[in-house]
Amino acid sequence: MRPPGTLPAEPARSDTPASARTRVRRIPENGRYDEASVRAIVDAALMCHIAFCDADGMHCLPTACWREGDFLYIHGSNGSRMLKVLQSAPSAAVSITHLDGLVLARSAFNHTMNYRSVVIYGAFEIVPEQHKAASLAAFMEHIAPGRQAQVRAGNAKELAATTVLRISLQEAAAKVRAGAPDDDEADLAWPVWCGVWPMALTPQPPQRDPSCTLEAPEYVLRWNDRTFCAR
Amino acid sequence: MRPPGTLPAEPARSDTPASARTRVRRIPENGRYDEASVRAIVDAALMCHIAFCDADGMHCLPTACWREGDFLYIHGSNGSRMLKVLQSAPSAAVSITHLDGLVLARSAFNHTMNYRSVVIYGAFEIVPEQHKAASLAAFMEHIAPGRQAQVRAGNAKELAATTVLRISLQEAAAKVRAGAPDDDEADLAWPVWCGVWPMALTPQPPQRDPSCTLEAPEYVLRWNDRTFCAR
Repeated sequence: MRPPGTLPAEPARSDTPASARTRVRRIPENGRYDEASVRAIVDAALMCHIAFCDADGMHCLPTACWREGDFLYIHGSNGSRMLKVLQSAPSAAVSITHLDGLVLARSAFNHTMNYRSVVIYGAFEIVPEQHKAASLAAFMEHIAPGRQAQVRAGNAKELAATTVLRISLQEAAAKVRAGAPDDDEADLAWPVWCGVWPMALTPQPPQRDPSCTLEAPEYVLRWNDRTFCAR
Repeated sequence: MRPPGTLPAEPARSDTPASARTRVRRIPENGRYDEASVRAIVDAALMCHIAFCDADGMHCLPTACWREGDFLYIHGSNGSRMLKVLQSAPSAAVSITHLDGLVLARSAFNHTMNYRSVVIYGAFEIVPEQHKAASLAAFMEHIAPGRQAQVRAGNAKELAATTVLRISLQEAAAKVRAGAPDDDEADLAWPVWCGVWPMALTPQPPQRDPSCTLEAPEYVLRWNDRTFCAR
């Protein structure tokens, strides 16, 4: 994992909001601005949602993502409308959310969810041609360590048809809720079951393609150990 | 589940895009515009991401959601910036995505993901005061059938402090990828494991609050049977 050479190095991160728009407004005590929290949530993600705007109005689209250093990366076809718009958009926002559970309180209005989320503000920049292949290899390494050396690598035509963009994590905020319901004192004797219904994005057993007769390599066998839930 | 009385009834849905911006651009054969596909994906969701714009630029924020009839509902504090902006925003976009798996092809550039997603375009409208309580009860029914009658119900003050918004599903599109990798003919003999790594948002065993001594009701015991993956 290396930041593309010609692009800026990683600056330090503060534990206060990087900007007014990054400050968590609702339930501010759940806001986290430290680099480790932001990175942990980003690294547990395989996809993000991106908000952008064009002549048709607002858009909110999901796409695969990965982190290298202090940047979140995305990629896609050169023909992608989203990637074309994001290259020149002065403002975009990216959100990553892990839903960790439903919180069942004694009062209807104290029900909530447990989650880990990050919102990133800023503008995307294009990753230069000479760094694209290494960035895409880093993505493969994030998904399946060791696989890049085994697959049929991308050729010049495939690489040329692909755009890689990145956005700095400098203007990012995390928001996390975990744990038990938080009932009002006056409701504590209310006779209803309360607690947490946890949930987690869970790997299921790998499904080898019917046309494939090869034994599963180590990283395939380890798929079931992957964790996308709160640790 | 009933649509709020004074608001428009549900119109019919076509299986072609409702508008130019709803048309799926990338891999159009994965696009689905029929009502049943959109509703199935929405109903499997507990949360969505919403794109909106204010003086600070673009935002992309997660929030809980539920469906009643042909509308997606969200709620929150009256003080929520997002809810305030969405009430008057001429354009917003909502995205729901279920990540169903990683697809490991023989060539690097044919790797992809399996997913079910919906994007909704349009403007949010406020749910009138007289319908708020019933809408929030429908949300509880969606989460935990039967619980609304057991919890300490919201009082007038709590209800007054809460805003409920909804957006029509008329201008929505679904996009779905499922199944095996799709390798090029020329790559079929490449000697690398290929197949699918499925994943699913999976309910974990309910955690009763330590302060609660009540037996779990039926809907709690059934939590582990809930399905958020592709059926």
